[in-house]
Amino acid sequence: MVEQEKKEDNKLKDNGKDGIDADVLFTEFKEHSVADFFKKNRQMLGLYGKQRTLTTIVHELVTNSLDACEEAGILPDIEVKISEIGDEFYEIGVIDNGPGIPEEKIGSALGKLLAGTKFHRLVQTRGQQGIGVSGIILFSQITTGKPTKVISGTNTGKTISLEISIDSKTNTPKITDKHYLDKKFRGTAIRSKFKEIQYKKGQASVDEYLRRTAIANPHATIKFEDPFQEITEYKRTVKVMPKIPSAVKPHPRGVTVDEMLSLARYTPARKISSYLTITFDRFGQSAVDNVEKLVHFDLNKDPRKMTWEEAEEIVHAIKETKFIAPNTDNLVPIGEEFIEKSLKSIVSPEFCFVYTRKPSVYKGGYAFQIEVGLAYGGNAGRLISVEVPAVPVKKTKDKNGKVVIVKEEQETQKEVRASEVIRYANKAPLLFDTGGCAITKTVDSIDWKRYGISNFDNSPTTVFVNVISVHIPYTSAGKSAIADEEEIVSEIKLALQDVARRLGIYIIQLKREAEKKEKRKVFAKYAPEVVKALVHTTGADGKLLQKNLDKMVLEKLKMDDEAEARGEKIHDDYSEDKLAADDE
Amino acid sequence: MVEQEKKEDNKLKDNGKDGIDADVLFTEFKEHSVADFFKKNRQMLGLYGKQRTLTTIVHELVTNSLDACEEAGILPDIEVKISEIGDEFYEIGVIDNGPGIPEEKIGSALGKLLAGTKFHRLVQTRGQQGIGVSGIILFSQITTGKPTKVISGTNTGKTISLEISIDSKTNTPKITDKHYLDKKFRGTAIRSKFKEIQYKKGQASVDEYLRRTAIANPHATIKFEDPFQEITEYKRTVKVMPKIPSAVKPHPRGVTVDEMLSLARYTPARKISSYLTITFDRFGQSAVDNVEKLVHFDLNKDPRKMTWEEAEEIVHAIKETKFIAPNTDNLVPIGEEFIEKSLKSIVSPEFCFVYTRKPSVYKGGYAFQIEVGLAYGGNAGRLISVEVPAVPVKKTKDKNGKVVIVKEEQETQKEVRASEVIRYANKAPLLFDTGGCAITKTVDSIDWKRYGISNFDNSPTTVFVNVISVHIPYTSAGKSAIADEEEIVSEIKLALQDVARRLGIYIIQLKREAEKKEKRKVFAKYAPEVVKALVHTTGADGKLLQKNLDKMVLEKLKMDDEAEARGEKIHDDYSEDKLAADDE
Repeated sequence: MVEQEKKEDNKLKDNGKDGIDADVLFTEFKEHSVADFFKKNRQMLGLYGKQRTLTTIVHELVTNSLDACEEAGILPDIEVKISEIGDEFYEIGVIDNGPGIPEEKIGSALGKLLAGTKFHRLVQTRGQQGIGVSGIILFSQITTGKPTKVISGTNTGKTISLEISIDSKTNTPKITDKHYLDKKFRGTAIRSKFKEIQYKKGQASVDEYLRRTAIANPHATIKFEDPFQEITEYKRTVKVMPKIPSAVKPHPRGVTVDEMLSLARYTPARKISSYLTITFDRFGQSAVDNVEKLVHFDLNKDPRKMTWEEAEEIVHAIKETKFIAPNTDNLVPIGEEFIEKSLKSIVSPEFCFVYTRKPSVYKGGYAFQIEVGLAYGGNAGRLISVEVPAVPVKKTKDKNGKVVIVKEEQETQKEVRASEVIRYANKAPLLFDTGGCAITKTVDSIDWKRYGISNFDNSPTTVFVNVISVHIPYTSAGKSAIADEEEIVSEIKLALQDVARRLGIYIIQLKREAEKKEKRKVFAKYAPEVVKALVHTTGADGKLLQKNLDKMVLEKLKMDDEAEARGEKIHDDYSEDKLAADDE
Repeated sequence: MVEQEKKEDNKLKDNGKDGIDADVLFTEFKEHSVADFFKKNRQMLGLYGKQRTLTTIVHELVTNSLDACEEAGILPDIEVKISEIGDEFYEIGVIDNGPGIPEEKIGSALGKLLAGTKFHRLVQTRGQQGIGVSGIILFSQITTGKPTKVISGTNTGKTISLEISIDSKTNTPKITDKHYLDKKFRGTAIRSKFKEIQYKKGQASVDEYLRRTAIANPHATIKFEDPFQEITEYKRTVKVMPKIPSAVKPHPRGVTVDEMLSLARYTPARKISSYLTITFDRFGQSAVDNVEKLVHFDLNKDPRKMTWEEAEEIVHAIKETKFIAPNTDNLVPIGEEFIEKSLKSIVSPEFCFVYTRKPSVYKGGYAFQIEVGLAYGGNAGRLISVEVPAVPVKKTKDKNGKVVIVKEEQETQKEVRASEVIRYANKAPLLFDTGGCAITKTVDSIDWKRYGISNFDNSPTTVFVNVISVHIPYTSAGKSAIADEEEIVSEIKLALQDVARRLGIYIIQLKREAEKKEKRKVFAKYAPEVVKALVHTTGADGKLLQKNLDKMVLEKLKMDDEAEARGEKIHDDYSEDKLAADDE
């Protein structure tokens, strides 16, 4: 025993014999299944609050369908239907045209928590935990006692219909009423009943969720029938299938010692050197050579016999070694062109700027990439209220001396809009836990005034941010917010600054145009009065005066335009130089 | 097949044969252990951020010790020691005098996630999931590759020393170096190494965590040695053991249909009627009679054969039946007397008001209870800065005409304090995710101005809130915030309004005193000047004038006091009537 340990052990005191014996206390000791854990703690899956729960259910089903279609290279056609059965009692059905689930896998894919194809691989998918849909099926059965109906058809198999529920004590699926359908079908259809949920419109609604899904997935057609049988259909604006995201090897930068060892246990490589090049992304021979120089043992050693200390040495050596940035092939952004198309079609703003950053990597060696869009004016932002201005009136008398009320030129009613931030993780919208999310925090940290948006909260702005990664660092199993990893925050900020700068230039132009228009309006309004007064006092020719005055006005405005064209500053508050100098 | 179902099935389309086959996609299908899940998603256990992770580790170990001591009826003596081993590399040791762990249970109690005595019982304990300490041991091994050292002694067994780690693939414990120690010891000592953490002082520090633990656990002695070998000891101020919290039956109010059925599956009762009275709290014969009247089946039926529909009928009938509030015996509050003692000893405020509400019940039939404390003035609140005021000077000339600088009466330096909200769940402090917690949200919703605190954020106020329950609805497995269940929010609000009202009365008095003092000061300052002027202009007797003036001042002040004693309003802005009328 080491000296230090002895010293520590000496601290242990004889505490006597009071209190209840441990043996008695531990008679209640039990082990629990992960299904029981989430059944008791469903708030951790985002299943709390009547509206939030409903939206989360649709979210889990739709992301599952989108992932399945994309993995199989199929342009998604998704139908969502919500029917009201009773008070706070609904049936929700989702049908997709995805690859379907093989017959023998349906049980564990849908009726077992922590099972699936996503958890252990580094692939950019919306789901990543193997909890989502099985959690939903569990929630259905604990609120209604009913199993969930599933129909699945694959390219090669028959069309299967069955009902599924979960034995939460053992986290295993229970399948009933299994039979084959004559009908040819490829895809997955899930129909499930739920209580303690409520359908409402608004910011956190299924409608808003699907609108945002459509924005970020322009290659998908999504049809939604709400409980009032009203149908909304978002047709795909892009008819090309996005690249199929492939699984990625971990990038050496950020790999932990524990991972270095765990991965070595199952490698087919016989030497640590080849284990490194096989297992990690961008680990070439020159990197191996450099690591070899820095460690105190032979890289020809069997990787399965690597000790913790040796793995630690390798991880330290990796920090001193240059690596190319992660392979960008594994990340599939929506793409600037498609985001723009989508925002224009669904948000219809006046201006729209988009930017897809280059891929980067955050702690743990996970590749990620940021896409942003900034839509301004038009229907951008959230509609808060419509102001119908009082019509100004003027009382005059007609020739008979009667009072006549004349309505002045009527202004059109004014829509009041507020800014909105629409957040995405791997193209799936995030609607909840706004305050705790890295995206919201970063948007809040931008000094929008610099870019000509003087009151960001009350401006007609839609900020679109999509974080894509092979592993999104969610703050909880409910997957509603992204943890503020330093590298991710920094990339979001740079991307937002870029689009904000470009928007800023347009806002300046807008302000100039508005001022010019105002000038013209003022001239047009007062010129006839001036003419009238001059005619009255000097007796000059009114028509000639008016003509000359118009000419003067036009020349003055033209001079302004020319000065502007020459690049002379007419306004001081916003200049392109200022915007350009804004980078930190 | 029902008509509706047929209609739904008709929606299924033959989607052709494009895309990758499902069989190919599902070759990567795997099942995962809950240990692997939390290993990959350690942020969900609150293990992210270097300081937060360190505090969370200490939190899990200390709450485990406190729970163990309390369950066994032992006054806790807990020693926490943090030693720095290297850069962001520490060893953390916690020794308690609790009941210890029986030899054969050590492995699964500490080396297996979701195992323990707490998850399945409704007992008021700090831990409730069976994840805490095993999650910590997992984190230790994935950052350092080292097992955790455990020494355990029980009243009846030997003192065992062993090292433990977790096989995350299977969620099973691995025990090494197991041997018996000669030394007699009762309790549990855990010593574990961690990387990627950092010891810092401040709001989210271990120091603050332990200070808050001491406030809410006046019966515990906690000794802390920080990495600089500085020792802080919180000695118990209460020498009586709190009541041992007992397991509670679920209250009928709020029991879900699913629970009604699950519990019936394992009941020894032969009739539903006796199942109800045995299983649920406060379910007497008159309640059974009432339920009998409302349901459409015989309560003599075997509970194991109860259908979902029948269970649903019972749950509906329960809603129409009167029940006594939950048994208060199962909740063990700290108690008003002890909270006050503790706040006074550790916070040393000027005023201190505490209030323990009666137990209540929230959705799911879980009993809970709110305790609040409001400390004001003195050292209450957080010290933000110390302002040392500039000393005012006056220049005069001495009799020789030389300039003399006279320092005016020096004001003492002023401490600037801000309010702090210290949150607890079952007496364990909550330091993180402040914004998302029901306690913070409720404190923010209080209109403090009404109670005389005009600028709450910048006032010397410590708000203490302890939520106790047999099941705390945490928002995540990291147990750092309480979900805002309606009933909990409402009880916190009522409790806070009560103490705020009582404080308000004192603040009014304080303001009056301050005004009186100010008046006296002004009189005392100007009376001699007035006398001097009168003597100069009228030639009257200065001494006599001064004496009469002093008498007048005293009488004026006395009249004010008398008016106040008669209950006449001198000030309008705060009145006791107003405060009393404040209940919603």
